Amino acid sequence: MATEVTMDKIVSLCRRRGFVFPSSEIYGGLGSSYDYGHYGVLLKDNVKARWLEAMVRERDDILALDSSIILHPRVWEASGHVGGFTDPLVDCRTCKQRFRADHLADPEHTELHCGKRPSKRPGETPDCDLTEPRHFNLMFRTRVGAVEETGVDVYLRPETAQGIFINFKNVAQLARRKPPFGIAQVGKAFRNEITPGNFIFRTLEFEMMELEYFVPPSDAQQWYEYWVAERLAWHLRYGVREANLRVRPHEADELSHYSSGTSDIEYLYPIGWSELEGIANRGDFDLTQHTNESGTKLEWVDAGTGERFTPHVIEPSLGVNRSMLTFLIDAYDEEVVAERERTVLRLHPRLAPVTVAVLPLITKDAGMVAKAQALRDELRQHLSVEYDESGQIGRRYRRQDEIGTPWALTVDEQSLTDDTITVRDRDSLAQERISIARAREYLLERLGEPWAPPPRTT
Amino acid sequence: MATEVTMDKIVSLCRRRGFVFPSSEIYGGLGSSYDYGHYGVLLKDNVKARWLEAMVRERDDILALDSSIILHPRVWEASGHVGGFTDPLVDCRTCKQRFRADHLADPEHTELHCGKRPSKRPGETPDCDLTEPRHFNLMFRTRVGAVEETGVDVYLRPETAQGIFINFKNVAQLARRKPPFGIAQVGKAFRNEITPGNFIFRTLEFEMMELEYFVPPSDAQQWYEYWVAERLAWHLRYGVREANLRVRPHEADELSHYSSGTSDIEYLYPIGWSELEGIANRGDFDLTQHTNESGTKLEWVDAGTGERFTPHVIEPSLGVNRSMLTFLIDAYDEEVVAERERTVLRLHPRLAPVTVAVLPLITKDAGMVAKAQALRDELRQHLSVEYDESGQIGRRYRRQDEIGTPWALTVDEQSLTDDTITVRDRDSLAQERISIARAREYLLERLGEPWAPPPRTT
Repeated sequence: MATEVTMDKIVSLCRRRGFVFPSSEIYGGLGSSYDYGHYGVLLKDNVKARWLEAMVRERDDILALDSSIILHPRVWEASGHVGGFTDPLVDCRTCKQRFRADHLADPEHTELHCGKRPSKRPGETPDCDLTEPRHFNLMFRTRVGAVEETGVDVYLRPETAQGIFINFKNVAQLARRKPPFGIAQVGKAFRNEITPGNFIFRTLEFEMMELEYFVPPSDAQQWYEYWVAERLAWHLRYGVREANLRVRPHEADELSHYSSGTSDIEYLYPIGWSELEGIANRGDFDLTQHTNESGTKLEWVDAGTGERFTPHVIEPSLGVNRSMLTFLIDAYDEEVVAERERTVLRLHPRLAPVTVAVLPLITKDAGMVAKAQALRDELRQHLSVEYDESGQIGRRYRRQDEIGTPWALTVDEQSLTDDTITVRDRDSLAQERISIARAREYLLERLGEPWAPPPRTT
Repeated sequence: MATEVTMDKIVSLCRRRGFVFPSSEIYGGLGSSYDYGHYGVLLKDNVKARWLEAMVRERDDILALDSSIILHPRVWEASGHVGGFTDPLVDCRTCKQRFRADHLADPEHTELHCGKRPSKRPGETPDCDLTEPRHFNLMFRTRVGAVEETGVDVYLRPETAQGIFINFKNVAQLARRKPPFGIAQVGKAFRNEITPGNFIFRTLEFEMMELEYFVPPSDAQQWYEYWVAERLAWHLRYGVREANLRVRPHEADELSHYSSGTSDIEYLYPIGWSELEGIANRGDFDLTQHTNESGTKLEWVDAGTGERFTPHVIEPSLGVNRSMLTFLIDAYDEEVVAERERTVLRLHPRLAPVTVAVLPLITKDAGMVAKAQALRDELRQHLSVEYDESGQIGRRYRRQDEIGTPWALTVDEQSLTDDTITVRDRDSLAQERISIARAREYLLERLGEPWAPPPRTT
């Protein structure tokens, strides 16, 4: 029987192994806020690093940016967020839950269904007694200024994209190239969501990885298709199973008024198919809006020929936390090995929080401990290493399995005589002996190899 | 004559080369907010990576954490920030500037002096006409909740430390070890500062790198001294000149009421000696406050012996942006080479935004271009690489000097016949020939070597 992956199992593992804790827990928590523990930070940092590698480091046409969370308030007037970034809300008088009115008619929005089964829509459940819609702005507002009376209202950004658009001119000058070129950003965003939930799938505070890719208007459709394919390939490259991914182009009536095409890369979560990443063809909407509002022309001008145009923009936008959750769900497996159950995260080696565990077989043996510690000291100059000398070797292996460590190196009796160690493979459980001197090279080679997830245990 | 490093020169270089832009510039800016361009992001990421390496990766006793920016509001009551995190403000009716009343009597606070020379205090300048002090809370306040009437007031964290204290119990269980152990965090914080300024030295929104190191009470003083030395060594390790650093222990009347010792690591900025990093012995103040406020005992308990105590905490706290500014200032140099002036950032190779530039000597030579691009493709799997084929070779070298790239590899005519390239050293300007096949190994070796800054040009 195939392993059933439920959200409860993921939440439990994350808690037990220190990936994710409910935030402010000792004060009773703060709805849908989470803090990331040691392995959660390492995994999340790896997700961001792999995205930046693919988007910036491995290419010549994309520059990085890190803009402020608090921007000038007129940014959000130009973008339409102050006027338009509102949800029409309805409350259910029976279950006391709140829904977006525009989701009531949409059977795809499975996560919003009153906490009940996804097969029913809230307006259809017998108990639902809905109020009239009320409008609510999703942006958090605060006030900058040393004293209240002279302050100015500002907002916490609900997306990182606008920080890119308003810096278009600064970056374009540095890029020294004609479009196509892109600007990539990773950073926090905040939404006063009415329907947060499902663990770290949707939270008030989250991290985004957004690319705005500026292209000549006539090439927009072709680049849109390129980025849908490119982003799908990224999720596959880092081990998400193909059967759990699909691309869903938005229907005409789902599109934002400025978008001439949007596709969601969807993942089959325990709650059903839902958006993992969105790729939108935003046309020239954003640059034109900011040009009009600021009076600064955001366009591309060829200094030589005088050619000028307002680029169109393709935007792949992915939540870090949601991506991390997806990798965790997809990697989760349970199996029985030698009559003992084990839980294992089959994470891509370049995502795993710890790349290699270094373990002395007998922790009271000073020789093994010294050799293992020397190996740890050498390896951690290059890799994420965990040294563990607590408890029986079997328990230590299980702990590494649960945090997804692809390889464990064990120093045993034989190591003391011939300077070899065993390498245990997380997925196959195969063990091979290699010389200590080769350990670093061996691991770097394995890390460089392509990787695909083994099938889930059946 | 030694290069004079002024803040204006740093600001200008950062703007010109795309390290740092004024934020929301097309809308007239938002006081003391900055956006980080491509090289700024790469440099800032390297600063954080080097800190995390030293604090987490190279050690066994420190775990990483990433807590929320918006925490439960009671966190800030327990910590004293709601009641006490206020500045007494005075306004100058003449120059319209605002000062902290408690800084008026302190000649060390040079950055607050009305934008005038640091030799005078604002109360002493003939023009100053100060109001009575008013109190103002430095935390940004906002409101969580889907509709205003049911929302709750919350704050943007003014430091990351409290997120660590409230997670003490969760992390301590995972650490599976008796104190001493630490929890390290990198993340954004926000302060509605009355006196932001001096470029990215002090901004409303900034990133912090904080360690809370929990120790048995009797060992607190010894660990405090350890961390002062350790943190000083980190700045030196990454190339800050020893002559520009000093440790200044706080006087008794400067200490927070809960601190039994605080030292600032100060740097000689163009504005004078100012705090770069603070290391505080906070005693058991924080864990005790949160224990009292939450009812959850934040203490260490030995499951075996039953021994229990509330650890004391040593806190080294460093601003990412300020650290980055310090590295930039310290690395800045101007010199005349072959009768031409050059500006160069002598950054530590492991901090430099670009590790290696790959340049075809003659950009119209298809053979050189192809060879250079193949080299770029290989190297960027391991290193931060920039490929540049625009303009004369001398100009391309100068551009790399200004962004601090330690090595440039040039593919020239000889490369086409013998597969060698030249390596140009940023600091010495020495050139040597190596084989293309050795390039990767050569660079990784050089990166692993200790590095010290050459003396500034005289």
